[in-house]
Amino acid sequence: MASGATLRARPAPRRIGKQTVQFENPPAIIATGTVVGPLEGKGPLGHLFDHVTEDELVGQKSFERAEQMMLQNAAYTALNKAGLTPEDMDYMLSGDLLNQLITSSFSALAVGVPVFGLYGACATSAEGLGLGAMLLDGGFANYVMVATASHNRTAERQYRYPNEYGFQRKPHAQRTATAAGAAILARSGEGPRVTIATTGKVVDRGIKDPYNVGAAMAPAAASTILTHLQDTGRRPQDYDLIATGDLALYGHRLLVELGRTEGGIDLEPVLDDCGLMLYGQDQEVGAGASGSGCSAAVTFASILKDMRDGRYKRVLVAATGALHSPCSFQQGEYIPTICHAVSLEV
Amino acid sequence: MASGATLRARPAPRRIGKQTVQFENPPAIIATGTVVGPLEGKGPLGHLFDHVTEDELVGQKSFERAEQMMLQNAAYTALNKAGLTPEDMDYMLSGDLLNQLITSSFSALAVGVPVFGLYGACATSAEGLGLGAMLLDGGFANYVMVATASHNRTAERQYRYPNEYGFQRKPHAQRTATAAGAAILARSGEGPRVTIATTGKVVDRGIKDPYNVGAAMAPAAASTILTHLQDTGRRPQDYDLIATGDLALYGHRLLVELGRTEGGIDLEPVLDDCGLMLYGQDQEVGAGASGSGCSAAVTFASILKDMRDGRYKRVLVAATGALHSPCSFQQGEYIPTICHAVSLEV
Repeated sequence: MASGATLRARPAPRRIGKQTVQFENPPAIIATGTVVGPLEGKGPLGHLFDHVTEDELVGQKSFERAEQMMLQNAAYTALNKAGLTPEDMDYMLSGDLLNQLITSSFSALAVGVPVFGLYGACATSAEGLGLGAMLLDGGFANYVMVATASHNRTAERQYRYPNEYGFQRKPHAQRTATAAGAAILARSGEGPRVTIATTGKVVDRGIKDPYNVGAAMAPAAASTILTHLQDTGRRPQDYDLIATGDLALYGHRLLVELGRTEGGIDLEPVLDDCGLMLYGQDQEVGAGASGSGCSAAVTFASILKDMRDGRYKRVLVAATGALHSPCSFQQGEYIPTICHAVSLEV
Repeated sequence: MASGATLRARPAPRRIGKQTVQFENPPAIIATGTVVGPLEGKGPLGHLFDHVTEDELVGQKSFERAEQMMLQNAAYTALNKAGLTPEDMDYMLSGDLLNQLITSSFSALAVGVPVFGLYGACATSAEGLGLGAMLLDGGFANYVMVATASHNRTAERQYRYPNEYGFQRKPHAQRTATAAGAAILARSGEGPRVTIATTGKVVDRGIKDPYNVGAAMAPAAASTILTHLQDTGRRPQDYDLIATGDLALYGHRLLVELGRTEGGIDLEPVLDDCGLMLYGQDQEVGAGASGSGCSAAVTFASILKDMRDGRYKRVLVAATGALHSPCSFQQGEYIPTICHAVSLEV
């Protein structure tokens, strides 16, 4: 076996910190496609999504099939906008919340692109953007599609109870968004670029309540964001926006506190959360949105548009995921969480 | 939006075919760790694994925790052999069969390395080796750990029935292996190298029987292997061994047939299957082994040893995965499958 000491002599050229890499030729997000459900379409960002479905079945025989159709629709919308075909894609990086990633697998079957299945729960969008940028900057691909989705009906019945049971949700619970997003990353082309990726460690602070995932995920967001700032030498104000994925109301407040107590920094002036942006305050969705489609749809439809329009020059997307299962919850385990972050710049 | 025609002018330097990349500085597999259950320990490869557990609970309160302990043990065994610590690892690429990847997530929490969660079912080992090699060759990491596990008790009760029910299995069914494997890939160092990676597309040929995953996966294996040979210009006899993951008896036979009918080639002289290698013929395991730990443990403990010992110079590991869920099966969907392949060379 080789000795570690010998190997450490040759550092990886693109690493700028223990959890962070910086791209030499930052890949561009040249096109995106987003599809959301009716409630998401009525929210404040509704006009920005490419497609809003009339109902949550979209003509399919099951909600699972509906979720797949939404992801495929998002994928083809992105391809059409880029003037590309599935044959142009070198890889699809795709993940979702459903057991065994059936949304991603059936969608990858339909789209017909070589696929790496990812699992990062609601952090999948940033996991895919980071990994995808590595495949492009590393010279392994010209085009990579990053795709993820979630569906309120499929996720709620898998993780908690079918909505039809009428289970009364706690006010601090988040609503799994019905949303799908696909983005095409390219080695060349126009669009906001993925310049830096900070990959998360799994974090667990002893939260067991599966209705309180925002609180469970806030420490993961703090860990990755503080590490990112340390690795890059940047300050919060170097970003026009730090957008977490799906912490919602209570997780968002916790993250502001954690930034102060653990990092000695004030994130609040630049911090927002995709789970707070998707729905309006009148929509009765508890603490806000969650679901892997949430951060994807909000980032791809709203944040990237604001970057193209010149409102933001530099955004840190820090998507968070709760990695528990109903089985681990029923066995009394804590909720492990993660946050992956990518810096987007124009 | 950028035009496709402009972008296509600048090819990715490491691509050698539509689904295949070749590494400029092929990463080395410098150390591995494997842990298997008692039945696997009694099989023909039993003496090659680092640890054989006395029972399937390994002192834990649940089989799920047992599976996590086995994966952590495999990870630390590999680290110890390499003389490295978790702090030396830049990334962990980890996946498993359990819902929401709880084996990988809790193990990544314990090991404390930035992690990309992967899902490729029983193809996870090759998915991880291929992606890991890209991260190393692309200059994003010095060390990457690839880790995966499966456990007979956890997988059977999640996918089919708890063993305690005494459900009589069909003779063509495969047995989910209790096995965990971890491999450390490095930019420099000694060991068999990952030279080429061919990434699979999702394949579906209309198989619905979740007890017949070998048959469902054989077309995916044929697709990836034939594409690999086409992309590289290699012939089957250019390999000392083509080792599929977990096709077992009937899937293996189908693949030989598919090689002849769809590719006009005879794979049989060099073809073997990890699902046929793990158990002895006297072990009453149906058609053979399956599970993401199977191809990982067999590849890391047996095939790599044969390569270091000079028995094999060049091996294609083509790990196959069935991407269905109990939900998709119960909804009458076909079983989508995938095969990822990596060429290992000394």
